Amino acid sequence: MVYDAIQDGVYAAITSGGFSSEPWILAYIVTAMLSSLAFLYLPKKLDVPQKFGIIHFFIVVWSGLMYTNFLNGSVLSDFAWYMDWMVSTPLILLALGLTAFHGADTRRYDLLGALLGLEFTLVITGLLAQLQGSIYPYYIGVILLLGVVYLLAGPFRRIAEESSEGLARAYKLLAGYIGIFFLSYPTVWYISSIDALPGGLNILGPTQTSIALVVLPFFCKQVYGFLDMYLIHTAE
Amino acid sequence: MVYDAIQDGVYAAITSGGFSSEPWILAYIVTAMLSSLAFLYLPKKLDVPQKFGIIHFFIVVWSGLMYTNFLNGSVLSDFAWYMDWMVSTPLILLALGLTAFHGADTRRYDLLGALLGLEFTLVITGLLAQLQGSIYPYYIGVILLLGVVYLLAGPFRRIAEESSEGLARAYKLLAGYIGIFFLSYPTVWYISSIDALPGGLNILGPTQTSIALVVLPFFCKQVYGFLDMYLIHTAE
Amino acid sequence: MVYDAIQDGVYAAITSGGFSSEPWILAYIVTAMLSSLAFLYLPKKLDVPQKFGIIHFFIVVWSGLMYTNFLNGSVLSDFAWYMDWMVSTPLILLALGLTAFHGADTRRYDLLGALLGLEFTLVITGLLAQLQGSIYPYYIGVILLLGVVYLLAGPFRRIAEESSEGLARAYKLLAGYIGIFFLSYPTVWYISSIDALPGGLNILGPTQTSIALVVLPFFCKQVYGFLDMYLIHTAE
Repeated sequence: MVYDAIQDGVYAAITSGGFSSEPWILAYIVTAMLSSLAFLYLPKKLDVPQKFGIIHFFIVVWSGLMYTNFLNGSVLSDFAWYMDWMVSTPLILLALGLTAFHGADTRRYDLLGALLGLEFTLVITGLLAQLQGSIYPYYIGVILLLGVVYLLAGPFRRIAEESSEGLARAYKLLAGYIGIFFLSYPTVWYISSIDALPGGLNILGPTQTSIALVVLPFFCKQVYGFLDMYLIHTAE
Repeated sequence: MVYDAIQDGVYAAITSGGFSSEPWILAYIVTAMLSSLAFLYLPKKLDVPQKFGIIHFFIVVWSGLMYTNFLNGSVLSDFAWYMDWMVSTPLILLALGLTAFHGADTRRYDLLGALLGLEFTLVITGLLAQLQGSIYPYYIGVILLLGVVYLLAGPFRRIAEESSEGLARAYKLLAGYIGIFFLSYPTVWYISSIDALPGGLNILGPTQTSIALVVLPFFCKQVYGFLDMYLIHTAE
Repeated sequence: MVYDAIQDGVYAAITSGGFSSEPWILAYIVTAMLSSLAFLYLPKKLDVPQKFGIIHFFIVVWSGLMYTNFLNGSVLSDFAWYMDWMVSTPLILLALGLTAFHGADTRRYDLLGALLGLEFTLVITGLLAQLQGSIYPYYIGVILLLGVVYLLAGPFRRIAEESSEGLARAYKLLAGYIGIFFLSYPTVWYISSIDALPGGLNILGPTQTSIALVVLPFFCKQVYGFLDMYLIHTAE
């Protein structure tokens, strides 16, 4: 019964109707792998610490690898989003937190741990909601996401403001960018019809949902990596 | 065959007979979520480092989320205890280790890694014993647990004794408290009849086992968080 | 369908034909557990930092535990290699990286993170290739492995050369040893016939493959631990 639910799940919904989202997914994987090479090369070129290149490299490589589960069906296909997000979204926030610390005297590693832990746990709430067929874990996840937004808008912003004006501005731009995109994920989830989330509004069809879940991450991963390194470069 | 075993497994045993442990599980989740809010608020109030509040927050939030798998059956329900423990019990020992380090000059991060690694690995031995239907991994897990107890009673106690007398006493109380509870987990497992552990003694019924596995964690998570922060507060 | 594939998978292939690799697997587990005790004892005896003993302890204990899945069939049996490698091989490289740092002034934790992240991700590519029945993730994994080899042969070698001549020689010996063994893993995978990797060459039979996958790790884990500690000891 549980296994029937899986087989009628997210992957089946995405690939139904001729799998019109396949070219989008392929484009996502190819741009991820190409960006990863650029992220290894850019830090030296832009005089940005190598750690930023390494973090952005793993964000896009991991995410691209997980999207291959949408091309070739596997037991992971219905959970590939969570497998992607549980690694890549904490890394996105790690890059953002280290951007705030860059040039600042304060290094609040307890808050950095809280930020990454909240993000990891909220991804798991999405997985639990889908597996249990219950919307309650999703609600807890939304509360945890508000905690992420609070940390970015409050304590981390104050740390970034300790360093130069240019770096503080770079942080605020990146935090606003990521904050808005991260808030749109649960929104897409909620208005989708892919049965991942029971009680969803069924406004987007499966193909539209899967395209949204290619376009959003493209801006949060591929584009974000270039933006982060470029803004640190120009701020210094 | 493997999958039949799962469907006749822990979750089915718990929910059989009218699921009389449901109110206990619900109470566990509600107290976990309420404690989590208190743990974010208390550090400032009690003048305790914020990192303790953050660690205790994640212990109860993670544990509460995993217990939702006992309310709504999912493919994770038979493994929800391990999913809970593999994150929450290393965090419990992280809080204890940092309590020992608090005020001491020595910071043995190699021993802290050993402590958390032993705990994580011993949780996995429970999962292996259940999945393989073999008691041997359980025996290895008991040996690893003795290693945890040794580290708490030996090296970490000596580190705690470097700091003030009050903090050393606080550490010893907490380490004794956690040590006794952690030793009672494999005992409950061994005398239970939920087929999670082959070769168990069948003294406790499934409902009694699941109640024991609500009461024990309640003292190791919700109560422990308050106790840890209160004892650090009064010791300083 | 997915689950049939699992039941006809790696574990079935290994155990077919009277399971002639069972004594090899048993020997692997027993030597792993015995070595683990030696690794806890040797650092004091050899005047090597305790952290090396702790890391080598977890490498062999974790690996030995995962091999129990080949003795008692479980849902993990087809994936036990990945479950082993995703923890033990990053730890092998952690020991190697810390050997390079030992005595050197430079501590490039960003490169250490990259090394461990590459290794973890390449283990996952093997899992994806097997689950998806597609060889493309395997190719990406080989590229990531070349990244591991580059880091060992380039940046980490240069860091090791900062310290004494003896330690630099010890590092180069260990890095060459691990580099050659790690390169032989995907080779064995590719010439095996256990259907784990679609497009494999079918040169080795299942029993030969599983023996190869006992002999290779034995040198990378049990033997490597002694070698690492002995070489650090004699170099000082």
